[in-house]
Amino acid sequence: MKSLLPKSVLCITLCVSLLSYSATGEEKESMEEQSGPMTLGVLLYPGFEVLDVFGPVEMFLNVPNDKLRVVMVAEKAGPVQAGTVADQGGYTGPKVLADYGYEDAPHLDLILVPGGIGTFPALNDTALIAFLKERAAKAQITTTVCSGSGIAAKAGLLDDRKATSNKEFYTLITSMAPQVNWVPEARWVDDGNMVTSSGVSAGIDMALAVIERLYGTELAEGIAKSTEYEWHRDADEDPFAKNIK
Amino acid sequence: MKSLLPKSVLCITLCVSLLSYSATGEEKESMEEQSGPMTLGVLLYPGFEVLDVFGPVEMFLNVPNDKLRVVMVAEKAGPVQAGTVADQGGYTGPKVLADYGYEDAPHLDLILVPGGIGTFPALNDTALIAFLKERAAKAQITTTVCSGSGIAAKAGLLDDRKATSNKEFYTLITSMAPQVNWVPEARWVDDGNMVTSSGVSAGIDMALAVIERLYGTELAEGIAKSTEYEWHRDADEDPFAKNIK
Repeated sequence: MKSLLPKSVLCITLCVSLLSYSATGEEKESMEEQSGPMTLGVLLYPGFEVLDVFGPVEMFLNVPNDKLRVVMVAEKAGPVQAGTVADQGGYTGPKVLADYGYEDAPHLDLILVPGGIGTFPALNDTALIAFLKERAAKAQITTTVCSGSGIAAKAGLLDDRKATSNKEFYTLITSMAPQVNWVPEARWVDDGNMVTSSGVSAGIDMALAVIERLYGTELAEGIAKSTEYEWHRDADEDPFAKNIK
Repeated sequence: MKSLLPKSVLCITLCVSLLSYSATGEEKESMEEQSGPMTLGVLLYPGFEVLDVFGPVEMFLNVPNDKLRVVMVAEKAGPVQAGTVADQGGYTGPKVLADYGYEDAPHLDLILVPGGIGTFPALNDTALIAFLKERAAKAQITTTVCSGSGIAAKAGLLDDRKATSNKEFYTLITSMAPQVNWVPEARWVDDGNMVTSSGVSAGIDMALAVIERLYGTELAEGIAKSTEYEWHRDADEDPFAKNIK
């Protein structure tokens, strides 16, 4: 294998890994259940919000490779363009490559559904909704960021479940899905196999909480520290709830 | 133009834009100097850290399209794979499409140099270092995140300048560039046309500070609010300085 680093860095990396990871009983149990790494599939669609994807993905990528791998999934493998709330006539964000299409995507243990301005057309994308519904039924945890909870609601994954969404489009998203027990004041809501977060940045805090649940507190805290991120650990503390529109 | 949104959302978006943006005298002066939108070029290289790129890019993408556009630049247009500190034999991160190669990249008013595990091979990439040196000389502001400051230092952009870097590889990066006035305790360091930030998440705070400088406080605060991000506004407050390695 080609070495990417000078030996000194390899040593530092190894030392950091050894120092920052020590499995607890609960973690060991979780690891024994899983023969290889779990797979997190990020569901990309045109007009997704970049930080909804790459905030959580930064945290999940820092879980050791033998425990978790991250793949990008879209209708078809290939580039998918991000969007922003400022886009009107077409998306202007960067393009990210989907590794798999719906037809050839591997089993997904974890799913991440981002939000973004593309949420609104995505709600009418029957192939996307069907794929999410089918795969979420087989996944251990399905997570959403921002208006991604609207997509999960459309797929019937949040019926009679507690969930949250972003503040910018809160009334619009929640009014489309009255069958959900929407929680307006929450950084994220953990309802077992469905974990939904508030807008954009909140996905980072949710991802760390999911990592903590699956792999233990020490690893989650180690990732927050190495990414110099001040983790908001209280799911119910939501300084942005006052901005609901 | 194809409409991406229902009319109600277009209305909300327009109202948010109108409410959240009101130019001050300083902003107007800045806008008059610029005939079209500024261009921010993100310099991608194999093994870049995803949040180093997409934390700041989230914030910059939310600047109205008529003021700023964001493009991805790499040695050649096409996919560039991200990495993580856990990668040893090859990068495992997602692939992002570069819009331009070094040869056909447009004029860049702003430049963002991310860090990541790929920094170390990038330091020996003479084409990348030459491109950065040439383009930074013509840019208004060059920014770095995390170990990206090591790349800027290698290009000679930080000689006798104040700068910072991430904590995980601080000693390694700073010892390679003794000609820089390194600041160990800083979320970011603004030294005029060179603005460098600490590790990974710190790039988000730096991006908002650059947006504030270029487009005014109101826009920067509006972006932090709509992305539900608690902006750390004090460049000198660095809770992670104690973790320097």
